[in-house]
Amino acid sequence: MPLPEVSQYIPHIAYDSVVFGFSKGKLKILLMEYHDTGWHALPGGFVERTENLEDAVKRGLFERTGLKEIYLEQFHTFGDIGRYQPEVMKTILEANGYAVPDNYWMLDRFFSIAYYALIDHEKVTLTPDSLSDSITWYDIEHLPDLILDHRKIVQKALQTLRENLDRKLIGGNLLPERFTMNELQSVYEAILGQKLRRTSFQRKMLSLDILDRHEKLFTGKSHKAPYLYSFKTN
Amino acid sequence: MPLPEVSQYIPHIAYDSVVFGFSKGKLKILLMEYHDTGWHALPGGFVERTENLEDAVKRGLFERTGLKEIYLEQFHTFGDIGRYQPEVMKTILEANGYAVPDNYWMLDRFFSIAYYALIDHEKVTLTPDSLSDSITWYDIEHLPDLILDHRKIVQKALQTLRENLDRKLIGGNLLPERFTMNELQSVYEAILGQKLRRTSFQRKMLSLDILDRHEKLFTGKSHKAPYLYSFKTN
Repeated sequence: MPLPEVSQYIPHIAYDSVVFGFSKGKLKILLMEYHDTGWHALPGGFVERTENLEDAVKRGLFERTGLKEIYLEQFHTFGDIGRYQPEVMKTILEANGYAVPDNYWMLDRFFSIAYYALIDHEKVTLTPDSLSDSITWYDIEHLPDLILDHRKIVQKALQTLRENLDRKLIGGNLLPERFTMNELQSVYEAILGQKLRRTSFQRKMLSLDILDRHEKLFTGKSHKAPYLYSFKTN
Repeated sequence: MPLPEVSQYIPHIAYDSVVFGFSKGKLKILLMEYHDTGWHALPGGFVERTENLEDAVKRGLFERTGLKEIYLEQFHTFGDIGRYQPEVMKTILEANGYAVPDNYWMLDRFFSIAYYALIDHEKVTLTPDSLSDSITWYDIEHLPDLILDHRKIVQKALQTLRENLDRKLIGGNLLPERFTMNELQSVYEAILGQKLRRTSFQRKMLSLDILDRHEKLFTGKSHKAPYLYSFKTN
């Protein structure tokens, strides 16, 4: 595969995506590992000259996760001069066997427009891109070192998720359609990074009037069977 | 003044700022009017090659308002292909007497990183840039036509302001340090675009525990004198 050409992509502009999933009580994100460097990064990419920004982000996520309908929110654009580290991209490209000219457009200063995505962990088929060995879920509390300012991008994504937690029904996108109150509480606890009191969580959720209650989830011990809920559609 | 050169600025990246002020019960924003076109636009600009994004935005606001300490929040980056309308910038530059080459960098496709600012209307000294006749306050409910997608940028800024209203003490940045409950209510009403009930607004504000109460504002009719408040600093 030849090096991508600047005639196809807009220089100076990249996107990065923080893809959140929830599994076994833990909040996770997707990270790529680049060939022969051991370096980890958020999945990202470039915008084609004739492409809308958001379409580029969706294209990149589809290529890596197989998902077309993804809950996606732009949350911040990172444009500090400190992100300009041409040797990082040069090392990644050279580790993939490319001879990289010094004035190559991918070595220039880039602004990154960051999105977070919320996906149902069970529905994903992960596919690394051509520069990467792997794309894998990592527990948000145990991330490896990340290139450039990607750690800062993750922190800002998590902060935005917390701020939006009550307002945008974020929990629902990380769960199957029907879930128990305990499962919903686990998602909230994983995002907030703290334990919540069961009774006050339940009271708060019910008072928001955003849940539909369905049949009980029968597990054998019927006197303990919890109700199933779904988010109201409107 | 010669045309700005791409050696000084990063191509494809611009910023626009939606500067909110509050005066006589109305929410207002700053708009520029370009020479000899009658076209109105948000105040914006470009980022220098060796400059942080946020420093560029602050520089532009300082040049136009004289203010150095401004409450500023990035809220969205606009990157649709539909914003690529080279004839708009060409017309503006030509109206200023420039001969513009077809491949000139300012005619290319731009992504705009949008910020909103909240300023105390009284403290500003407005200065137009070299391409513009004027920079003036416009009532948010009576804006003129705006170039490109600037109307959409204003709408998104207002939406973000509404979403952040309780969380980020936005009202305080639009008022002098001390204000009456009625003045605060007017700011909320102007942002939300609707009247609020006085008693429930007052109850809600006091329950949030974010205000300090000071002496009464004496106006002569002492039995009606309202208390002055300020936002708690922390």
